[in-house]
Amino acid sequence: MSSLTLFDYLPSRNAWKVRLLLHHLGREHRTVTVDIFKGEGRHPEYLRINPTGKVPAIQLADGRALAESNAILVYLAEGSPYMPTSAFDRAKVLQWLSFEQEQIESKIGALRYWMHAGEWSNQSPPLIQNMRQTAQRALEVVDDQLRKRRFIASDDYTIADMALFAYSTCAESVGVPLKCYPHFSAWIRRVEAQPGFIAAPA
Amino acid sequence: MSSLTLFDYLPSRNAWKVRLLLHHLGREHRTVTVDIFKGEGRHPEYLRINPTGKVPAIQLADGRALAESNAILVYLAEGSPYMPTSAFDRAKVLQWLSFEQEQIESKIGALRYWMHAGEWSNQSPPLIQNMRQTAQRALEVVDDQLRKRRFIASDDYTIADMALFAYSTCAESVGVPLKCYPHFSAWIRRVEAQPGFIAAPA
Repeated sequence: MSSLTLFDYLPSRNAWKVRLLLHHLGREHRTVTVDIFKGEGRHPEYLRINPTGKVPAIQLADGRALAESNAILVYLAEGSPYMPTSAFDRAKVLQWLSFEQEQIESKIGALRYWMHAGEWSNQSPPLIQNMRQTAQRALEVVDDQLRKRRFIASDDYTIADMALFAYSTCAESVGVPLKCYPHFSAWIRRVEAQPGFIAAPA
Repeated sequence: MSSLTLFDYLPSRNAWKVRLLLHHLGREHRTVTVDIFKGEGRHPEYLRINPTGKVPAIQLADGRALAESNAILVYLAEGSPYMPTSAFDRAKVLQWLSFEQEQIESKIGALRYWMHAGEWSNQSPPLIQNMRQTAQRALEVVDDQLRKRRFIASDDYTIADMALFAYSTCAESVGVPLKCYPHFSAWIRRVEAQPGFIAAPA
């Protein structure tokens, strides 16, 4: 049995982040599917792995579990080319991971969840509009940063790019237009060209 | 001149997180106030420090700048008792920092911003209700975790507690009731009793 277990669900882009990094690293693992849409995230045994009931989570051979996609990325990327070693460069990666959670994932990710789970029509139009506007402003910041450097945290491809890619590239599917972001579009192509890149399911 | 500059704004709890850690560390710094409510965050010279225009940010003596409160906490806490040294324990701190940004700060923080900035009445009631419910579910998770251990990431006080404290303790001021969370309430008292703790402005 592999020493690493990934609690995964194919439609989740947060889970895709971890799948992508494991593929880049060529790291062996076993996968346990947690069907969030069927409520499997609320089972008591899974809540002991991740108290929020979300995917992804990982479990080590000794039983210790870790949740939150970006924390998992940092943990697994240590010592690899995808996480810098200098204190300041590491902190810049964390800056963009934090930005991604607060301004991209919590907006585009939530809109996408409602769409996939059939809950869109239960949400109020002003709520959806507010979330789209916040995501749009965040993508403007991203586009401007990518005018100055090749990847979001530096000129190197890091886990910050993997995290950002996950939900920023779903923007159009939830009504946030992307065509006015040339630097962002060019970055998408650079990320997709990385060795070991795997596309996310639609 | 001090080697560290903090770009700060008194009403911001994200800025308070950094102020609190600097106080715990006894670290000398100079403060530059950025009056977000007066639009000073949108000035081009500040946008070069933090592209989102938010506070806090820090700048080192060599001019390099770092934004996102939780990334700043990790950077400044390195080598101190407030950030663990083992890879897994560090990742658990990052797990709760990520949870805080996505499920606490982006909800309670945004509600509180609208209240302070006089924008509350422009928001739709369903939007406010959705954010309150997400925050309430997040506080239920926090309360359950604090039933099992003294602090949020371990039995030790870390930057994850500083981050969580900032906005979770504003819950009632934005209409999220706290009285049914006994473990959370006991944790508030434990955090406040830490040597070097400084209260946040109301």
